[in-house]
Amino acid sequence: MVKNRVVVLFSGGIDSTTLLYQLGAEGVVVYPIIFFYGQRHSKELLAARETCKKLGIGLEEVNLEALGRLAPSALTEEGIEVPRVGYSEGSMRNTYVPNRNMVFLSFAASYAIGKGIRSICYAAHGGDHALYPDCRPEFISAMEEAIRLCSYDEVGLEVPYIYWNKADIVRRGVELGVDYSLTWSCYQGGDLACGKCGTCVERLEAFAEVGVKDPIVYERS
Amino acid sequence: MVKNRVVVLFSGGIDSTTLLYQLGAEGVVVYPIIFFYGQRHSKELLAARETCKKLGIGLEEVNLEALGRLAPSALTEEGIEVPRVGYSEGSMRNTYVPNRNMVFLSFAASYAIGKGIRSICYAAHGGDHALYPDCRPEFISAMEEAIRLCSYDEVGLEVPYIYWNKADIVRRGVELGVDYSLTWSCYQGGDLACGKCGTCVERLEAFAEVGVKDPIVYERS
Repeated sequence: MVKNRVVVLFSGGIDSTTLLYQLGAEGVVVYPIIFFYGQRHSKELLAARETCKKLGIGLEEVNLEALGRLAPSALTEEGIEVPRVGYSEGSMRNTYVPNRNMVFLSFAASYAIGKGIRSICYAAHGGDHALYPDCRPEFISAMEEAIRLCSYDEVGLEVPYIYWNKADIVRRGVELGVDYSLTWSCYQGGDLACGKCGTCVERLEAFAEVGVKDPIVYERS
Repeated sequence: MVKNRVVVLFSGGIDSTTLLYQLGAEGVVVYPIIFFYGQRHSKELLAARETCKKLGIGLEEVNLEALGRLAPSALTEEGIEVPRVGYSEGSMRNTYVPNRNMVFLSFAASYAIGKGIRSICYAAHGGDHALYPDCRPEFISAMEEAIRLCSYDEVGLEVPYIYWNKADIVRRGVELGVDYSLTWSCYQGGDLACGKCGTCVERLEAFAEVGVKDPIVYERS
């Protein structure tokens, strides 16, 4: 029997790492793809490699430094500060990388079509809707339609966590035995996670809500 | 009065060059963007630079070599032959670069958002509908919706030639005084246009229909 093959948008963070484990547990053959776009938290690429090594799967790494140059944000520019406050729209808006998710999805579709794979999976989740326009259901519906139509054969886009929050994802990951010590979330470029930026706060809150200790090491304040 | 600013997907070919002239004639400030994706006909980039030089406008050049590697086609791989026949679906299908236009449009949107520009213009035309799924009106409608939703501010996508054929475009270009000697269409990688591949044939037919001589030099057969 031919197993289902799926291209997975992978970032080395909590959400897409959980998704990789979940699809693997469902018997899907996963093709993770990750992007370097000049992000100061390029440590996420190292985390992604570690997870793929642990799972015994390949990782497609794509250099898109042009994106950081064309469309600067706090994630790529030293001169723009990553906010050290909670995960809300006002505080996180300068971490929006202009149209990043469409760029990533379009490359994932190119990769899928080139390999004859008919499905793409993407771990956008409910906690991002308020912050990032390119994580909202209506944006994703439009992209689903565009990806379905872009080629001679239809390609599907699945977004299983679209109405989950971060704690739901961590809860599922704990059941699946995800090794969260190999994930990276912090938007600062430090050696250790800062524990204070929006993504660190959101991550810590999710682990706290599930009642499990976050296994990564944080900077002492 | 602030003039309208528009990002234009530019290839150095007939269609997008005509579009640049047309928008310029309408008083729009154009921001052309072009991509290198490993295409063997990279001479189109040289043509694009010449046109921009002539028009006195800048050109944003983006390196996307990763695209050719991720999604090979006859346009990027020496081992896949560019068909030397007419411009019809069967003959041109291996010149489809998987999802190329979505990748280009997504970068154009990133560029527009980064610059605070609210409009993107793209020269897809009717002659490409039968051949390329990512030139069809239904694909473009989905992309229009996705681009509208991808950011905090709405960005529009305009496709003025969507129901024109190539001869309509050349006719308009001749009225506008487009310098077609600075355009490049041939998909082969030669120093001169081959005159025999699908795009050369389509180009020559369009000039013949309009009754104007194509000013570029072709290989002698």
